[in-house]
Amino acid sequence: MDPDLSALDEYLDETDTDGYLLDADSEDSDQYYLSGFDAPDPFITLYDGETHLLFPRSLEFGRAKRESRAESVQRYVDFDHAELVDEYGPEEAVSYVLAAFLSSYDVDSVAVPPRFPLKTADGLRARGVSVTADTDGVVTEIRATKTDEEVDHVRAAQRANEAAMAAAEDLLADATVDDDGTLTHDGETLTSERVKEEIEVTLLRHGCSLDETIVACGADAADPHDRGSGPLTADEPIIVDIFPQDKSTKYHADMTRTVCKGTPSDTVEEWYDLTERAMDAAFDALEPGATGEDVHAAVCDVYEDAGHPTLRSDDRTETGFIHSTGHGVGLDVHELPRLSPNGGDLEPGHVVTIEPGLYDPEVGGIRIEDIAVVTEDGYENLTEYEKRLVV
Amino acid sequence: MDPDLSALDEYLDETDTDGYLLDADSEDSDQYYLSGFDAPDPFITLYDGETHLLFPRSLEFGRAKRESRAESVQRYVDFDHAELVDEYGPEEAVSYVLAAFLSSYDVDSVAVPPRFPLKTADGLRARGVSVTADTDGVVTEIRATKTDEEVDHVRAAQRANEAAMAAAEDLLADATVDDDGTLTHDGETLTSERVKEEIEVTLLRHGCSLDETIVACGADAADPHDRGSGPLTADEPIIVDIFPQDKSTKYHADMTRTVCKGTPSDTVEEWYDLTERAMDAAFDALEPGATGEDVHAAVCDVYEDAGHPTLRSDDRTETGFIHSTGHGVGLDVHELPRLSPNGGDLEPGHVVTIEPGLYDPEVGGIRIEDIAVVTEDGYENLTEYEKRLVV
Repeated sequence: MDPDLSALDEYLDETDTDGYLLDADSEDSDQYYLSGFDAPDPFITLYDGETHLLFPRSLEFGRAKRESRAESVQRYVDFDHAELVDEYGPEEAVSYVLAAFLSSYDVDSVAVPPRFPLKTADGLRARGVSVTADTDGVVTEIRATKTDEEVDHVRAAQRANEAAMAAAEDLLADATVDDDGTLTHDGETLTSERVKEEIEVTLLRHGCSLDETIVACGADAADPHDRGSGPLTADEPIIVDIFPQDKSTKYHADMTRTVCKGTPSDTVEEWYDLTERAMDAAFDALEPGATGEDVHAAVCDVYEDAGHPTLRSDDRTETGFIHSTGHGVGLDVHELPRLSPNGGDLEPGHVVTIEPGLYDPEVGGIRIEDIAVVTEDGYENLTEYEKRLVV
Repeated sequence: MDPDLSALDEYLDETDTDGYLLDADSEDSDQYYLSGFDAPDPFITLYDGETHLLFPRSLEFGRAKRESRAESVQRYVDFDHAELVDEYGPEEAVSYVLAAFLSSYDVDSVAVPPRFPLKTADGLRARGVSVTADTDGVVTEIRATKTDEEVDHVRAAQRANEAAMAAAEDLLADATVDDDGTLTHDGETLTSERVKEEIEVTLLRHGCSLDETIVACGADAADPHDRGSGPLTADEPIIVDIFPQDKSTKYHADMTRTVCKGTPSDTVEEWYDLTERAMDAAFDALEPGATGEDVHAAVCDVYEDAGHPTLRSDDRTETGFIHSTGHGVGLDVHELPRLSPNGGDLEPGHVVTIEPGLYDPEVGGIRIEDIAVVTEDGYENLTEYEKRLVV
């Protein structure tokens, strides 16, 4: 993919900066996006209208020349690294190499992302290079707007996600309920871990990997970041949140369903219906011209009108609606734009989750999450998976 | 686990620094080690003899109080965040919150790891806090020496690794060879991707996850970082490099075998024998008191004596022995110590790989890798998996 970097050109122009600099491995999505290169160890990317890569060692050199989208690929050894180590020691030598690399492109000033490594920045400053951390990361901002090809990558990952969700629901549907309410499957207690294993194996079989999955039941589910553990029980809401990454494209999908084996309490049913209404309200607000803040406010309105606390009504609450409404999804599972109190303008090509939820250790947790792309006249929901509370 | 942080106390004492500061999510192993807390979004850890955590939002607050090893857990809201946003805007407010947090512990100067985020550092400096990037990261250095419990975690991950390697070798052993030399299994062409899927499903079933696996055949294998793709062929060396992470403990293992279905060439057989000899030489050198540089030199000697280029004999070579001899393994799959030209003193409790190899696009690649722990009187090889070239 050849990214549209015109916004980066404008940024460098407006800020009167010679280049944009990254020092990261390709787990850093800005690095992967700007360099077009996948490598497990940190390397340098300079963008000054063209893209230039610099590697500490020769190891990635040949592959970078073949695979990256850079105009030039160089190594420390091309900038007299060994001589500089003799003169300044291994630590300081690196800053001389980087300064010489920048100087070879007439770059005296660079902008860098907010999480750029301090040691590299201080080293360059000591060599007289001006280094400024930009606010949100201009490359991160560029990545928020997806091409059709990128949306198709998310769509493909979402199909795998749905196969995994179906595998999880099948396990729960096939389970039986013990006298004490514990779920049993194939003669064994059905645990969060067992359901996660089924999800993850299904994702692998569909070309996806993932870092974590959430299968959280009862009080576990009242904490939105608890991954869940141990036996699953009947009549309790179980949050299943799956966010796989397609191994070949590196794009993510994201979906949550809350399901119950047996009979949910009246409160859980009420929360579920309310959360579906909050989701509808969010989608009604999702269009170009609206802000992420508008979409988040629509969800807060629904919950607050029904008497639930939100972080908007009480910034210290630990129950109620205690996270933001959604986030961008792409090379990172959490990226721009934000659907939150400080969420900015929405634009066609933004891929976002809509994921309202309610939490209370006394009740458990409810969350429902779809993924959608903002279009010229509204949005397209990329999720093709039904919502049902009882399995 | 309660880490031994006496070396961090000494470091702060010697450098006359009030505290050590981290700003990272728990994918950053220093953060996970020092905070004892697992969270997907960045948070702040301050160590000043005790450990203090600071979270932007309330989301992780309750779980951090329950699960982390910190003496105190606080949120931005505890430092008048909303008022500071009104006064200074959302960007600058964060630096005021962090400065107030540090000030509440009488911390005016902090040391930070080399890859600490520049924006956070510049923000603190603007508030009058002294921020210094240390060289290798003192917490990273502390992590290099493992407790018995940590070694057991690596050992457990290595058992899963060996189950996955056996599954891969079984696939290759069961394959048949087509007329054109392509391997076939169960009526389908056997590809790198298919073998990797088998490896990864086996790891998941054993409680491990992983980012990447290498199954590289022929010319692919001549690049040590090429993950491999497409059909596998007979009579060619296939490098299988597996480095899983135990999901519950987060510790890694690492092992490589090079295997051949059919009849390897005389050159491949010769390289394989030479690489086994290089490995033996490395293990002969592996003991406390020796340096990582000594162990690496032992491998270079074997290869150079046999007429192969190494990066020691030619720092621009792209064939021969073109990487270092090994690296530490723990919470990160690549961590300290280094078994390389600048590798320092080896100490009991260091867990390292020994992984000599030879590469040439004309021949392919050979690499053999075991994982071992340095002991008081030498080392213990944690690998219980045979080495055989022909499957």
